[in-house]
This record gives sequence, structure tokens and C-alpha cells, in this order.
Amino acid sequence: MLTTDKFAALATDNAPGQELRQAAGNIGNLMRGESIAGRLVDFSHGDVDAFLPTPGALDRFSEAVAAGGRQAYTEYRGSADIRAELAEKLAAFTGAPISAEHGTIITPGTQGALFLAVASLVNQDDKVAIVQPDYFANRKLVQFFGGQVLPVAMDYMDGSSEAGLDLTQLRAAFEAGAKVFLFSNPNNPTGAVYSEREIGELAKLAAAFDITIIADQLYSRLLYEGESYTHIRACGLPEERTITIMGPSKTESLSGYRLGIAFGSPPTVERMEKLQAIVSLRAPGYNQAVLRTWFNEPVGWLDERIRQHQAIRDDLLALFRKGGLATRTPQAGSYLFPTLPPLAVSQHDFVRLLHHQANVIVTSGSEFGPHHDSIRLNFSQDHDAAVAAAHRIVAMADRYRR
Amino acid sequence: MLTTDKFAALATDNAPGQELRQAAGNIGNLMRGESIAGRLVDFSHGDVDAFLPTPGALDRFSEAVAAGGRQAYTEYRGSADIRAELAEKLAAFTGAPISAEHGTIITPGTQGALFLAVASLVNQDDKVAIVQPDYFANRKLVQFFGGQVLPVAMDYMDGSSEAGLDLTQLRAAFEAGAKVFLFSNPNNPTGAVYSEREIGELAKLAAAFDITIIADQLYSRLLYEGESYTHIRACGLPEERTITIMGPSKTESLSGYRLGIAFGSPPTVERMEKLQAIVSLRAPGYNQAVLRTWFNEPVGWLDERIRQHQAIRDDLLALFRKGGLATRTPQAGSYLFPTLPPLAVSQHDFVRLLHHQANVIVTSGSEFGPHHDSIRLNFSQDHDAAVAAAHRIVAMADRYRR
Repeated sequence: MLTTDKFAALATDNAPGQELRQAAGNIGNLMRGESIAGRLVDFSHGDVDAFLPTPGALDRFSEAVAAGGRQAYTEYRGSADIRAELAEKLAAFTGAPISAEHGTIITPGTQGALFLAVASLVNQDDKVAIVQPDYFANRKLVQFFGGQVLPVAMDYMDGSSEAGLDLTQLRAAFEAGAKVFLFSNPNNPTGAVYSEREIGELAKLAAAFDITIIADQLYSRLLYEGESYTHIRACGLPEERTITIMGPSKTESLSGYRLGIAFGSPPTVERMEKLQAIVSLRAPGYNQAVLRTWFNEPVGWLDERIRQHQAIRDDLLALFRKGGLATRTPQAGSYLFPTLPPLAVSQHDFVRLLHHQANVIVTSGSEFGPHHDSIRLNFSQDHDAAVAAAHRIVAMADRYRR
Repeated sequence: MLTTDKFAALATDNAPGQELRQAAGNIGNLMRGESIAGRLVDFSHGDVDAFLPTPGALDRFSEAVAAGGRQAYTEYRGSADIRAELAEKLAAFTGAPISAEHGTIITPGTQGALFLAVASLVNQDDKVAIVQPDYFANRKLVQFFGGQVLPVAMDYMDGSSEAGLDLTQLRAAFEAGAKVFLFSNPNNPTGAVYSEREIGELAKLAAAFDITIIADQLYSRLLYEGESYTHIRACGLPEERTITIMGPSKTESLSGYRLGIAFGSPPTVERMEKLQAIVSLRAPGYNQAVLRTWFNEPVGWLDERIRQHQAIRDDLLALFRKGGLATRTPQAGSYLFPTLPPLAVSQHDFVRLLHHQANVIVTSGSEFGPHHDSIRLNFSQDHDAAVAAAHRIVAMADRYRR
């Protein structure tokens, strides 16, 4: 692929977080009615002012600065003692052992972990099965390394308690020669959690076809009342066949520290570290120490955070459904993926109109796959502001109905 | 290239900073004499406990945490206001204008900037001219993207006041189809600074052959008494033909914050940001604020830091030369690249012996090119400890002489 094409495929024009660089453009001629006033809500990411970082994070950071060189210069894969603590906590959380020495790597953000995992496992012309919809970078990463995406549908609106993964398409992708299955669980953008049965079937198929699995479990701690979660890495696959990615950016609001961890397959971690040496050397030495707060929060802190998110989720779901925007109930995480009614403007224009006419930032559904009638919201926001903004979204959808 | 070969080429077995992962192995049978006692000195990187981070760094960081979401979630290319400050300072430092909006990107470390720059400019089968010796990651980066390295020799021991770049070989590499010239200035590992004439000739050739230049100027602020420095980006090349990389990791001892910046060519910065979106999203939001201390240090702080490094440099140079290890005088930065006498053991074994028998960590010369008779030292260390360790290096070189 020519460099020019390669970078065209990486377009960030509609990527979340880049709204500052997106000019309003000429949308005046599309505009119907007046502006709808209200405090700006940026649903493209969580609001760390509404949900504050884990208590003690800055203290751990400052201690690391005081510790000096020992903490500034860690192994490329991260400080050995912090990795030892994490391996223990994450093994307990996911239900399968982790080698602290050989099976863990700390990265600059979970994005860093995802990049290194894909770079380590996907080469020119390799086939990779990817769910539609799923995290927007998955597809871009595979394409950047010259791999070929084999899409697998997820019928997330079917109303059952399962995520809706199309297991027939999954098998077909594996039969067609996929080497790697890359997915987020809970699913980004829908908040769907794969059922025990779905993960079990995935594990069976992966074993039969010798597939390596990259599981992005970034949001797996923010699990709502009554939901259960199955970790693919605890499903009996060979250790070298799964790599799991997590980080404290989301539930814990520590995204300003940019920390991620990948764990599992030792040969994959080995490659990831070699690559990290030329990509960024290591996650910032001092920042790594903030991971000491992770899975180590004050008693009741996580429960309260889940309860608060669930309350926002329920209010927004009720509002959208009443306003005619069909929306799946997220079982975990803080994303909502409402379906828009038929509109007289394109999805991208509607997103721009929401921003410039109603002071609401959302992400286009088409970032996550061929979902041209959806928008994604991260509802980890101030509760009242989120509800007010959701009212504006419903009003705007009404106003631009075809 | 097969994935396996690709990762074999990325070997970090002898890379600086990875000594913790390097087992002593079976060197007992090579060992001559007893251990030489002394406090461990790790010359593989600077000692941020000996040379403390810039005053105020942690304060700027803490203020950023207090600022909350605004600082946690910046544009992928970094906070616009911090980039505006940097563009002004770096334009003044390098002597040519910089577009804050289109020509700057903040990255996780200068390694991150280097990775993104190479990834943006080098594709499968592209030819890239690289100096020998030069920073070990340069070659690995080009190879990782399927590019071909065209080596250009530097006769850094010729005793003149120039770096010793072989301009005939440089022209030959450009004639052979090189698209990109990637180099560090001051040169890592030798500390050589390219003369005004050398940079002028480079600029002329680059213009004639339409070459894009990636200039890694990480150490350009630590310039010793009486030396002068020529910035390639101020030599009249078209703006889109140079990208310069700097960061506060070295002179300023801020490496524990992992910050870098690339500036210059807007189309290259545009590509780098698209790629950063999938590699690591952005440099940590809070860490970026530490850049506010950069080029903004207390009066006299930089002069004193240079004076202290120059004193260590001069003591080590005298010691090595007296001990028979020919060494170029570094004009900037904190690296020394002494030539070892003929030894009865291989370079790698000598490096391991230094570590396990004399408590001194250095980096093998072969990491930087075909330099199997050299070792690299970062002498940004406690002065007395560095001198004591240099004595041990000389004693060990004597002991293992062929």
C-alpha cells in the first residue's frame, strides 16, 4: 500500500477527542431553527471532572518522583514490582494465573497495548476477524499493518440477554483463514457483554482453528447490577493464545495518566516489549506508580461509582427510547449507542449540527463499522448535564427527521 | 518479511535500559581475577538522582491534575496552548518559524516522535540514509517498516573539529534513491556536532535530491563551551522537507515524564497525529504541562548544568586516553564512545564482565552500527562515582587485553 493510502485509511477527522480540530464548516445552509441552549456536554469521552480519579493517584505519582531514577527508568515492559502486584490482582480478577515476569507489559494507555498487540500478531495479508460494531481503532490497526479485516456481525439489538455475536459468521471467518480475533468486551460502542455461552463457543472455535485472541476488556470492572462476565482467558485456551488488555483509564478516571497493561501470552508480551523499545520505550516511569491504586480502591468506592453510572444510564435509556431512538441496554461500561430515526441530513452532518447548534458532542456510529444511523455517547458525565444534553439530542433528532 | 524475522531484527537483548532482564549467563569461565569493588554506576542512561529534574516540574504536573479534564484530554497532537508556547520557544532556539497549529506534535517521549516520524515517511522498500554510528533505534525503525538502510560513514576519530560525515557516501546514498535522511545531532553515541559546513553541504544535497530530513536534536541544548551548533531546519530547505525532534528528557532530566515534540513539516505532523491516534492516542495529558518548565528554567540553571557535565566529560576523557581507550571529545550531550583496546573476549562478553565483575553498566557499541570495539557511556552521573567507575573500566580493559 502506498504511504498516502495508508494514512488516508487512518483518517481521524471524525475520531472522538479530535472535535477541537473539526471546523464547523458550512452547515448554516442545513440548519433548521434556532440554537438550543445548554451547557456543553462532550460525550466523546468520560468527564474526569464529574467522576474524579481514584483517591491517592497523585500521591502515588509524587512518591514516584521522590523515588527518583529507580522509578523514572524501568524495564521497557514496566517496573518489575508494580507488574508483580498487578499480576496477582489481575489473575484474581480474571480467574487464571499470570506470569508477572513473562506475561505482563505496562504501556502508554490501553491504546498503546492494543497497538503493540496487533503489531506483534498481524503482518501483511494476515486475516483478522473483527466484530461490527467495535472500537474504531481495531480496524485501522489491522489495515495499518497490511492485514485484512473479516467482519463478524453482532446483532446487539435483538433483545436477548446475549451480545448477539453471529457465531456462524465467526466460524466462517476462522474457516476463511483468520489468524487473530480482536474484540472488546464489554463491546465498545454498545456496552454489550458477551454471555458465558458466547465466550464458550468462541473459545471452542478458537481452539479448533488455532486462533490467537486479543481481548480488550477495558471496561470489564464497570459491570451493572445483576450482570455476569466471562473472561476468555480463563476458558482453557493455551496460555500463548490469548492476550488481554486492561487499564485504569475508564472506570477509574485515570486517563490523564495514560496507563494500560497487557497480560497473558509470554511470546506475545516478548514481542510487544521489543516493539515498545522503538515505539515509546516505556510507559512514563512515574505514571506507572499510579497503578498501585488500581484494584486497591477504598472500600465501597467501586460500588458507588457503578451505582452512579447505572443511574445515568437508566435515565438516558428512558429518554432516548421515549424519543424514538432505539438503544440497547449496556450491561457494562459507560457507552450508549442509540439508533437515530431516519434523518434529512447525513450522520456526519447531524453530529456537526449537534455540536454547533445544541452544544453536544457525540461520535459518529460509522467510526465503529457500517453504522450510519447511530451515534455513540460516553455517559460518564455530570448526571444533570447528561440528562439535559440527552433532551437536546432527542429534540434535534425530531427537528431533522426526514 | 515474516513476523518472526521482523521481531528478531528488533532484538533488545543488548539495548540500554534492559540490563535488568539480562542474565549474567555463564561468564564464570571467562573471568580473570577477582571482582573490583565499587558503587554501581549505570552508564546506560543518565542518573536523574545525580542531576535532578528541572525545578517546578512536579508543580506544573500537579496543577494539571487539578485542572482536570481540560488537561487530561487534549488533542491527540497535544494541548493547543502548550504547543503555542513551545512553537515560540523552539522557533527562537532553532532560528526558523514554526506553525503552532499545523507544525507541532507532542509525543510520549522523543522515542515516540521518532517512531511516528519514521512511520510517516518510510514505507516498504523505501531507502533511508543512516549514519554509522548513530542511535540504535534508527536502523531498527527503518527495518520494521520494511525500509532499506543505506549506511553513511562518519569518521568521528579523525581529530578535526568536524563530525566527520562522509559527504561522498552521503551523495552516493542520495543518488542510490534514498528518500529520507535520519540522523541525530549531536550524534548519539559519539557526542559529535556537525559543523556549519557539514550541515550546509547536507542541506544542499537534500535540496538537490528532494530528500526529507528527520533531525533528532535531543541533546542540542547541552552544548559545551566554545562549540557552535547549526540547525538544519534553518538552512533554507522547504518547510515540508524537515522534521525536527526534541524533548526535555536529557539535559533537563525529565525522562520520567516521557515527553517529546516533533516540529516542522505540517504534512508530516498531520500523518504523525493520525498514527498517534492508533499508537498511544496522545502524550499523557498531565505530563504535557511539564513542558511549561522547558526553555523556561531559572536564570543560570542551564549554564551550571553544562558546566557540571563538562567537568565530568573532561575527567573521563583524560582517564580513558591515559588508559589507552581512544575517545572523541563530545561537543555536546552526555555520551562518550571510547574505543576498547584489542581484547581476548568479545565486546558483549566484556560488557557483561563489566557489569558482573566491576559493577559498571555500559552499552555495546554494536547497538549503534558495526562498532564492535567500542562502548557507549552516558556520563550524566554523580561525578565521583563516574570517575571511580571509569577507573574500573580502564582496569578491566587492561585485564582482558589480548
